[in-house]
Amino acid sequence: MLTDLFSPSVQHSLDLAGIFVFAISGALLAVRKNFDVFGMAVLAEVTALGGGLFRDLIIGAVPPAAFTDLGYFLMPLVATLIVFFLHPEVERITRAVGVFDAAGLGLFCVSGTVKAYDRGLGLTFAATLGLATAVGGGVLRDILAHEVPSLLRWDRDLYAVPAMVGAAIAALMIRYHVLDGPTTAVPVVTAFVLRLLAMHYHWRAPRAWHRRSAAAEEL
Amino acid sequence: MLTDLFSPSVQHSLDLAGIFVFAISGALLAVRKNFDVFGMAVLAEVTALGGGLFRDLIIGAVPPAAFTDLGYFLMPLVATLIVFFLHPEVERITRAVGVFDAAGLGLFCVSGTVKAYDRGLGLTFAATLGLATAVGGGVLRDILAHEVPSLLRWDRDLYAVPAMVGAAIAALMIRYHVLDGPTTAVPVVTAFVLRLLAMHYHWRAPRAWHRRSAAAEEL
Amino acid sequence: MLTDLFSPSVQHSLDLAGIFVFAISGALLAVRKNFDVFGMAVLAEVTALGGGLFRDLIIGAVPPAAFTDLGYFLMPLVATLIVFFLHPEVERITRAVGVFDAAGLGLFCVSGTVKAYDRGLGLTFAATLGLATAVGGGVLRDILAHEVPSLLRWDRDLYAVPAMVGAAIAALMIRYHVLDGPTTAVPVVTAFVLRLLAMHYHWRAPRAWHRRSAAAEEL
Repeated sequence: MLTDLFSPSVQHSLDLAGIFVFAISGALLAVRKNFDVFGMAVLAEVTALGGGLFRDLIIGAVPPAAFTDLGYFLMPLVATLIVFFLHPEVERITRAVGVFDAAGLGLFCVSGTVKAYDRGLGLTFAATLGLATAVGGGVLRDILAHEVPSLLRWDRDLYAVPAMVGAAIAALMIRYHVLDGPTTAVPVVTAFVLRLLAMHYHWRAPRAWHRRSAAAEEL
Repeated sequence: MLTDLFSPSVQHSLDLAGIFVFAISGALLAVRKNFDVFGMAVLAEVTALGGGLFRDLIIGAVPPAAFTDLGYFLMPLVATLIVFFLHPEVERITRAVGVFDAAGLGLFCVSGTVKAYDRGLGLTFAATLGLATAVGGGVLRDILAHEVPSLLRWDRDLYAVPAMVGAAIAALMIRYHVLDGPTTAVPVVTAFVLRLLAMHYHWRAPRAWHRRSAAAEEL
Repeated sequence: MLTDLFSPSVQHSLDLAGIFVFAISGALLAVRKNFDVFGMAVLAEVTALGGGLFRDLIIGAVPPAAFTDLGYFLMPLVATLIVFFLHPEVERITRAVGVFDAAGLGLFCVSGTVKAYDRGLGLTFAATLGLATAVGGGVLRDILAHEVPSLLRWDRDLYAVPAMVGAAIAALMIRYHVLDGPTTAVPVVTAFVLRLLAMHYHWRAPRAWHRRSAAAEEL
């Protein structure tokens, strides 16, 4: 079984770490949007668990892990409390948060791909769901916070592409039967490093060709 | 079986009442947003049935009640017609609508908790889904209407907290085997009264500590 | 079995055509919103497959067709590439895109109704899901693009009504056992023509009566 890539406890700790950093980003956006403490908790939960929830609904894994694992549920509340009391300090370490978020991105795109494949999806779709697991929570966060999803904006450093690459590598490694415990690090670290590089060099994706200049002002 | 808390017909009547008042709030927002009559109907349906639909997808109760009970489906259309022809009169009784909405909140947070528990969820998750059942429709309403979800805004009277308290009491009563037909009134009425008090005294939840003053203008 | 209305290959080709034109509308909106090429792909996928995905989750058809049929998945990427390189040309033929979109609307409202009925939903709910299949992708597109859903706006030509009529006719024809391969053209063409007429004559739906004049400015 592919989900036994890591020992269950290692896998679970990695999941919790990813959930925690995603929840921090949700709670921080809630502070910037002037939401109250309950709004912070909602945004933290949605950011951390939304991608996995979407994946579980698609593959028919109900009730989703977000509603059966108490650790998954409590971790965003811990993140909310930390941001509630210490948000200026947390904002000051934005760069560190970004690094953790990149780690979450790498972990989730691979674990999402593996879980979807385990439930019988084809490799293309498994990789797509891996991508959705990694970025879905952030999209839901931005929709709830009434913002243009930063995933879609051209003026943001590449975010989907590292997850896409990680998920694709994981799918290829499944295809060639070389994905097991230790080798899982390959797609995870690739996605992680790509995201760090994208942040450092401000990599952007191209917009449509011949874009009329007037369009820029419409936004 | 816990869902036999009330006689089925009483339960159904209470559900329809809750659906009706939530639908009124959806249709009224559609009028304020200048939507046409079909937009009003969509917003009424989504507000009234969205929370329960989310709950049913999570617990795997498909097709959801919203797509099997004709009364659930027709009630929001009745609300739409009433608001269409009488909306100035309906707006004038905003306070009455608020009272009914509080009643819907109390009913849904408890019935959602019970239904989720009946499907095998743990008590913490059942209470969380009860909360989601009660407030989910309003969040979807605001997203569709392109507004910041009023659930998340700090400058709104407490809305999630009464539902959270009601769902938590219901879960505790299930835990100690004291939830049956008549005693269900305890969490329902508690949530209802808390919401009325929150509206009357304009109770607010705190925002993050040390919030920079500049942030208020960003919203 | 009702889904054998058309030969499978004809049905599949029609589905792909509908998916393609919906994807074009998603990619074009992404260009207007200044999104990058990945944002275009996301919006194209969501617009094309979102309605069917919602339908499949409601009827419990998991994994949804969008995650099992490679053609469904690839078609929006083709549409994205075309819009990426040729979007001024595509915009210039907006009228042609509108005609194809109307065709997609007609096809999806009927195929959605039939699929939902086949899974055991009542006719009213099957028709409602048919409507949701046809318009759901566009609503998700607008939410992701941070726009007021054009479905709900009164100042847009009728869009939901043609799909509603098509779905209702299909449901009535199922009820009276007269829906088979060739006769499916009746609801499809009815919805298609109604939408074309709505575009040509700028049909609008009414807003609530006695609407306060001040409300228009709030939007």
